[in-house]
This record gives sequence, C-alpha cells and structure tokens, in this order.
Amino acid sequence: MKFTIDRLGFMRQLSNVLRAVPSKTVIQILTGIKFDLTDSGLNLTGSNADISIETFIPVTDESMKLQIESTGSVILTARFFSEIIKKLPGETFTFEVKDNFQVVLTSSVSEFTVIGFDANSYPRLPEITDATELEFSSEVFRGLINQTVLAVSAQESRPILTGVHFMINADGLLAVATDSHRLAQRKLDLPVAGNYDFVIPGKSLGELARMLADVQDEIHLKITDNQVLFNFGSTKFYSRLLEGNYPDTTRLIPTDSTTIMQIDAATLLASVDRVSVMSHESRNNVVRLQLNAENKQATLLSNSPDVGNAEENLSFTALTGEVLDISFNPDYLKDALRACGATEIKLAFTTNLRPFTIVPSEDGDYYVQLITPVRTF
Amino acid sequence: MKFTIDRLGFMRQLSNVLRAVPSKTVIQILTGIKFDLTDSGLNLTGSNADISIETFIPVTDESMKLQIESTGSVILTARFFSEIIKKLPGETFTFEVKDNFQVVLTSSVSEFTVIGFDANSYPRLPEITDATELEFSSEVFRGLINQTVLAVSAQESRPILTGVHFMINADGLLAVATDSHRLAQRKLDLPVAGNYDFVIPGKSLGELARMLADVQDEIHLKITDNQVLFNFGSTKFYSRLLEGNYPDTTRLIPTDSTTIMQIDAATLLASVDRVSVMSHESRNNVVRLQLNAENKQATLLSNSPDVGNAEENLSFTALTGEVLDISFNPDYLKDALRACGATEIKLAFTTNLRPFTIVPSEDGDYYVQLITPVRTF
Repeated sequence: MKFTIDRLGFMRQLSNVLRAVPSKTVIQILTGIKFDLTDSGLNLTGSNADISIETFIPVTDESMKLQIESTGSVILTARFFSEIIKKLPGETFTFEVKDNFQVVLTSSVSEFTVIGFDANSYPRLPEITDATELEFSSEVFRGLINQTVLAVSAQESRPILTGVHFMINADGLLAVATDSHRLAQRKLDLPVAGNYDFVIPGKSLGELARMLADVQDEIHLKITDNQVLFNFGSTKFYSRLLEGNYPDTTRLIPTDSTTIMQIDAATLLASVDRVSVMSHESRNNVVRLQLNAENKQATLLSNSPDVGNAEENLSFTALTGEVLDISFNPDYLKDALRACGATEIKLAFTTNLRPFTIVPSEDGDYYVQLITPVRTF
Repeated sequence: MKFTIDRLGFMRQLSNVLRAVPSKTVIQILTGIKFDLTDSGLNLTGSNADISIETFIPVTDESMKLQIESTGSVILTARFFSEIIKKLPGETFTFEVKDNFQVVLTSSVSEFTVIGFDANSYPRLPEITDATELEFSSEVFRGLINQTVLAVSAQESRPILTGVHFMINADGLLAVATDSHRLAQRKLDLPVAGNYDFVIPGKSLGELARMLADVQDEIHLKITDNQVLFNFGSTKFYSRLLEGNYPDTTRLIPTDSTTIMQIDAATLLASVDRVSVMSHESRNNVVRLQLNAENKQATLLSNSPDVGNAEENLSFTALTGEVLDISFNPDYLKDALRACGATEIKLAFTTNLRPFTIVPSEDGDYYVQLITPVRTF
C-alpha cells in the first residue's frame, strides 16, 4: 500500500473521521483510524461504541492530488498520526506500508516511521442495504437537531431520554426531546410514505450537527432496527439507535393559556443571562418572572441572600391576560431562547405550577418548547 | 460614594487590576477589588500575596465619562462584580454605596444590588517613596522579560531559581534565569549610576509582560529591599522580591566551541517541533542532533521504541567544525528558539557532554541561551 496526497485536503477529510475516534476506550483498536486504499480511492474509517464515520477520497478528485502506487489496508493510532500530518512541512506527503504494518510518512525534509496494525483487527461496520432512504436538506436537518437536542437528558438513569425521538408518518416528521424538566418539539413537512419511530442518541446528533455545519449537499437517511446511517457528500455517518419505548409526549404540551407575552428573543436572552449571574450564586438557581398586563410591567428578579439581588425591566411587544408570578431555572430559558435565534417569540402561561410554552411568534406550530416552573412557596 | 462611568472604558482598567486578584486564597478579602473614589478620580486595587496592581482613572479623562457625586471607598468580590459589569446593557453604569456597604449598580433596564465590604479591611500596599527610579522603554523591557523568564525554574525546591536575577551597575543591566538545565541571559545598555542586585519572581514578570503588551509609555522602576514597583501610564505594579543569594552564573557560559551551526530559527523550530511529536511518546523525551560539516549534513532524530521514529534533514546556512552527536530535551530548544524570534541563530557546541549555546547570529553578545545535553550512553 503506497500513495501520495495533498496534505491540507487530506487533513480536512481526516478531521471528519476523527470526530468518531475516542481518546480513551476499552477496545484499544478503536483509538486507530483504518485506511483502505483501492484503485478507486482512499477510504478512512473511525469509530467508537456509538458512532462510526467513513469518508472516501476518490482518485478522480483532482484537488486531492491522490496518486496510488499500490493498494492495501492498515490501521494507525489516530491522534498521534494526525498530529504528525498537521506538522509535516510539505504540500503533499507519501504514505507507504512496509513490513509488519510499519508505515513510512515522508514529506519534504521529514521522514516518520510509525508502527501500524493489521486492518483485519478492525470491527466491521453495520451493513445497511435494503432500508428505505429519506432525503433532507442538510441545513434544515441541522436546524432540527440544534432545536431539539438541547432538551435531551444528561442523566443515564433513564437512557431513552438521552436521545431525540423521531416519528415519521403521513403527517410529516416530528422530533421530540425532553429531560422531564423541559421539552423541545420540532415538526417538518415531509412528503414520504411509511411509518418510522426511532430514538437517536443526543451525542450522535450533536456530532452530526457539527459536521453538517460545512455541508451543502442533501443528506440521505437510512434506518434499520438498531442503526441509522446518514449519507452526505462522500461521508457516511452511522449511529446506533436507543432501545426501548419513548414516553408519550403528545399530551404534555398545554393548548390553553391565561397570560401571554410577546418579546424579542435576543432582548429576553440578554436579560435572563444577566439575572442568572446572580441566581448562579445561590444553591437553587431560580429566577422569578412577574407579569402584570394592566400595569404594562414585566420584571425578572433574582435574589441570592449572601451576595445580593438583581432586577430587570423587560421591554415586551405585547402582554395580555392575568397577573402572574412564576419561578424557573434561567439556564433552561437561556437554552430555549438561543435555539429560537433572532426572532420574536411568544411565551404562554397558565398557572405558576404548570409548564409554560415558548414558540416563535410566526410559524409557532412548527417549533414548541416547554419549561416546567419551580415551586418556591 | 456614588459615580457614573463609561462601561467599556472601565472594564479595560478593571481587567488590568483583575490580573492580581487570586481566584482562591486563604486571605478572603483579597478575592475583592478595592474602590477608592476621591475628587480627582477613581482608584482600583487588586492584590495577591506576590503582586499588587493599582490603576487610577482620573476625572479629567473625558473618554471615561466619570461623574462623581460623592466620594468614598468600598470592596466588592472581584470575579462576580466583573461578570455583572461585562453583561450590563448600558453604555454607562452607576455605582452607589448604600447602607452596610451594599452597592447598587444600575445600567439601562438592569439593577443589581451587591453586598460589599469595608475598605478598611483591605491590606495596605507597601510604600515606596525614596527609592531611586530607573526608566525603560516598555517594549524593550517586555522583550527582556520574555527572553529570560522562559528559563526560570518551575520547582519550588530552590525558590531563588523561580525568579529572574537582575544585576545593574556601570556596565549596564544583566538579567539571568536558569533552572539548572538551561539558562537565558540578556544584556541591556543602561546609562545609570548605582548598583542593584535583586531577583523578581518569574510569575510576577510573566504577568507584567502580558500587561505591557498594550502599553506604549515608558516604564519606571523603583526598588526597595523587598519590593519592586513598576509604574507605567496610570498603573502601578508591585511585586515582592525573592530573598536569598542567586548562584553565580557568569562562569557557566562557555567561551570556546568546536562545532558551529548557523541556521534560520524558524526552520529549526519547525523541525524540532515535528521530531518532538515522536520524542513525547517515549518516557525520556530526548532528540538527537547529528552534525557533520565535511558531508554538509545536519540531522535531527528521535526514536520511541513502541511507536516509531522520526528523522529531519536540516537546511543550515553554515556548518563548521568537528563531527558531533548530541542528545537533548527538544522542548528546551523549542522554548529557546521561540524566544529568539524570526532571526538567524548560531548554535555553538564543544562536546556532547557540555552545554551548548544559542545566540542570534547578529547582536550575539546581548542574548545568550544555554542548554545542557542529556547523556544517552
């Protein structure tokens, strides 16, 4: 196995695969990257227990200057190899496998000999062949991930809640996440036949969203019983699915409300962010929102007995309904507002004991978030 | 005590003082910043056991929009206060001390009440009045710090070696640091009368150098038996001096040599940096330099039995003298080369057991570094 390739172009592809490579793992071989060189190009594979990423560099891509002298496969320790490639002096480098899987990397005045491993010791990736294929705009799917994944649970006590629940049927796609204190639900119109119901780990989706930041292509999704495959450009992203039944969340979202405030999301975010500097100083981390439509007053408060207190007057667009005094974790609201982006939003409350909803003022059917208040009396 | 001030301008001054404020300390009051407001302006003080920093915002500085309603003093917890100021919404903010040292901070729609402390509980800064004053260009002094402080010892076993030794006399200024494995010595022509010999902690100098990065003014230095004061712009920087006798280093620097290589510092740095990726994988972290003037060859090598090996051919400007095979810690050479900057340097060797010197090819008298080799046989 021997090839020469453009160094910076290769590093870009390598960095995608590195996302899947764990820095520590009980399966030692997974700290490596697998190289498979055929006459058509170079395939790189990285994997941990949850995610596997494959990327293919075709010999036909002229920008990669890929010159193949002989084909083959080998595994190299990922972090160490990438550190070397990053620092090599030349525009291109040559990668040659010698006896006993030793790999010689040469570039300009540098020569590194690195001990490699037999490619046969690498675990096989799942084969996903007959599954139906769904297609999304990568930008839309990335938005959907970022708007839901914030609400997945960080607690392993109920593993199913660490994922995002996808339901696909004739009505379209519904993605829901909840850690039981808050919930985020995103709808997508989807012209697709068939019924799908699956839960993708939040960590997998977070990694996928970061990769999609630079991707313009469509993204193709294939689902089996325990795996999902996202295919985009020359990259394949595999994730295991979470096993178990996701709780029914459809009836959690309140349909009625008694107090409604419309406000610019960025304005409210700045205020909550400031007040949370104070609430973070106290053990319970709670802020208090007081709404009075008659007096046209909306005030955000926090009090930490040993440190001081904070008060913000909110400039809202509209405030209607009954007087309300409600307390909640400001960090949940900050996450929710960040996920809304630069837009006007509508907060709808019933009592100070029931969850309140946050929706964009326009297009509110498609994105709903829910926050459970904290009882302070 | 009550004043209004430009928020961003104030934050810049505050950030200087924050450099001295420890995040953890046994003397609880030192986690605070002291505010002293007189008719002439606002003074901010921060301090830890080693460094104290004072900065003065004069009422005459129009850019600061300082409006004084009533004078006084108070202490506020530094990190918490600065986090609030950073996030306040207005261009200016008002700072008012109420009963029991409570401070009310108002800015646009925000109002924070923060518990403060009696300014009398703050320790007094040393008074430095009669000492002789020396004057430096802040840029030159910052360069001098950065070129020497890299060689101070990180080990507290010989405290005196954690500082930089300054000797000032009719010949000029000599600054020396060594951790006994390497040494850095910088000379400065200085038209000054008198004799000074003192050792400033490396940590103090590192902090001072970071502050000087934005400073154009001259820097004024005053020395007493146990303190040094650097005065620049409207800032005062105090540091304690290290007690004890610094070892005599004058005879450590070899004057003869048998092999000399001239090479571009950046080229050599890139090569050592790459080879050190390999040496860092082995326990002893050593690279090997082989020089052969007759064959016009200079090679840098590293071998880590479990991982592989690396080899670099160096492109030098000149190589003269005897054949040499010497081993050393590559990180010491990397530090030394970074301190040299973009310039051609001269490395001078005697045997592979004796320290070698690194000097800029031009101006070599003013800056000398020394690295002790590692015996590998």
